[in-house]
Amino acid sequence: MKQILVTIPVNDRHKAYLENIGKDCIFTYRAAAAVTEEDVRAAQIIIGNVPAAMIKASPRLEWIQLNSAGADAYCRDGVLAEGTVLTNATGAYGLAISEYMIGVALMLQNKLYIYHKNQLDHYWHDEGDVTSIFGSTTLVVGLGDIGGEFARRMKALGSYTIGVRRTAGEKPAYLDKLYTTERLDELLPRADFVALSLPNTPQTNHIMNEERLRGMKPGAILINVGRGNAVDPDALLRVLESGHLGGCALDVTEPEPLPADHPLWDAPRLVITPHIAGKFHLQETFERIVRISGENLEKYLAGRKDEMRSVVDPATGYRKRS
Amino acid sequence: MKQILVTIPVNDRHKAYLENIGKDCIFTYRAAAAVTEEDVRAAQIIIGNVPAAMIKASPRLEWIQLNSAGADAYCRDGVLAEGTVLTNATGAYGLAISEYMIGVALMLQNKLYIYHKNQLDHYWHDEGDVTSIFGSTTLVVGLGDIGGEFARRMKALGSYTIGVRRTAGEKPAYLDKLYTTERLDELLPRADFVALSLPNTPQTNHIMNEERLRGMKPGAILINVGRGNAVDPDALLRVLESGHLGGCALDVTEPEPLPADHPLWDAPRLVITPHIAGKFHLQETFERIVRISGENLEKYLAGRKDEMRSVVDPATGYRKRS
Repeated sequence: MKQILVTIPVNDRHKAYLENIGKDCIFTYRAAAAVTEEDVRAAQIIIGNVPAAMIKASPRLEWIQLNSAGADAYCRDGVLAEGTVLTNATGAYGLAISEYMIGVALMLQNKLYIYHKNQLDHYWHDEGDVTSIFGSTTLVVGLGDIGGEFARRMKALGSYTIGVRRTAGEKPAYLDKLYTTERLDELLPRADFVALSLPNTPQTNHIMNEERLRGMKPGAILINVGRGNAVDPDALLRVLESGHLGGCALDVTEPEPLPADHPLWDAPRLVITPHIAGKFHLQETFERIVRISGENLEKYLAGRKDEMRSVVDPATGYRKRS
Repeated sequence: MKQILVTIPVNDRHKAYLENIGKDCIFTYRAAAAVTEEDVRAAQIIIGNVPAAMIKASPRLEWIQLNSAGADAYCRDGVLAEGTVLTNATGAYGLAISEYMIGVALMLQNKLYIYHKNQLDHYWHDEGDVTSIFGSTTLVVGLGDIGGEFARRMKALGSYTIGVRRTAGEKPAYLDKLYTTERLDELLPRADFVALSLPNTPQTNHIMNEERLRGMKPGAILINVGRGNAVDPDALLRVLESGHLGGCALDVTEPEPLPADHPLWDAPRLVITPHIAGKFHLQETFERIVRISGENLEKYLAGRKDEMRSVVDPATGYRKRS
């Protein structure tokens, strides 16, 4: 009889679904903002993100199912006790975030952000040349659900897709080429789009430094939806001001939130959104999180831990398997 | 030995391509803005748009190949003499305009225009719920090259695609359903996206009147890239202000350019661009126009008029065949 703490905003239908799977369990529902240390200490299973500081290597906690794709806060020393299972919500966000990525790519390419500024000024003015996704080359760095779904859509729209991942593996059909991260420097100059959807690890911190940003193809577009620290913000500002890039879209920044007086707000050819591409803003995202949680719960309670989805290795911050 | 006036901005490579097809012809190259009545009177063939008023039923003119998809200015009485062949540039604009349409659809759906306004104000603020193309229903009104390419892309991104055209015909693979225009009123309430890419004819003038705009599904998005007069602007303003629609994108307006004091500039959930989705802004668009012109020239000179592409019937403003 497990104690399960649920912090995601489930409705009655979702509760019935979870309780039907965990028939002998005791469910506590608590809004994420209202969770107490007592709630966390009592739980053997947590479904939903809770502040990592509240966990403090709780020996009672057996498994936490995050509602986020990012798991870095839970991978730090002293958060999870040895052997605690950590699963993330990979598979929930690919749809919402990849559509966001297509949107900002076209917004930059078609100068729609400039036209919107002109609209605010009631200014009817032709801003000239554009480029297209069709016939372009896209480099996707980080091939989780988000990077994969983005590559799939770019390929459907006529882009040549190259994927880069940490470890070698079988090439999925939505990629024209697949390489490991060591090849990044030679691939950057080939791409019209570079998309980053990387977890926050020591290896990905400022992976896009000034040298790599300048190594991108002139006029290319950079999109970051993973963690803000994948891009060096000072270097990005210099490279954008130099006119080397065609544009950049950041849904994640360093720091976050971006202070009102930060120079990036006014950088040329930059589109900034406040870490909104994911969250639960798309209803389907939340439905997927509930389904992932339910499927993992069923496997966990049946003692089939090996079959659980999206298990994260706290030592690396990467998934052990999809 | 035909006299050919070329008003599109060809480079040496394009000239060599056309002159190789019209070996015995005399080519005159003149920038569209510099064309004189004398140039037009001398020409038996014109490649590129010239002011319709300059043509004045010129008896010498045998064929004009437009660089635009819209042909309405040349379909009015007294412009073309009986029997003059009119071809447009269908096939050139589908790529550029359909990518623009995907861009504005996602910009509205993901509230990217609001986030860009916030960025200009250095304002980090979550604007809440979004919707997705995946799982939506798209109604494409007007199935020329532009509407067809848009439908193809929306279907690839997971939308259910319904097409409406003037005359019945075989359903292309990128449409889930195809109907004739008489069914428009019953289809409007089903669509999350309504896309208009219609020629300017008496039948399409204000086809989206207030009743039809209010007949759209609550929260749906309207996109107009054909001619501005397909949408009644006063009705649109009222319907947008009522909050009935999720958004609207206009690349074409009535009137055009939109005067600086026009109330549409500040209408809620509206994205306006100044008739820029087409033009020659994408290099590939221009390359396609040159290829269409060359292929039609080859057929015309060989006496194979029946095989020419994109022949417009001046009486209806519609293409006789693709």
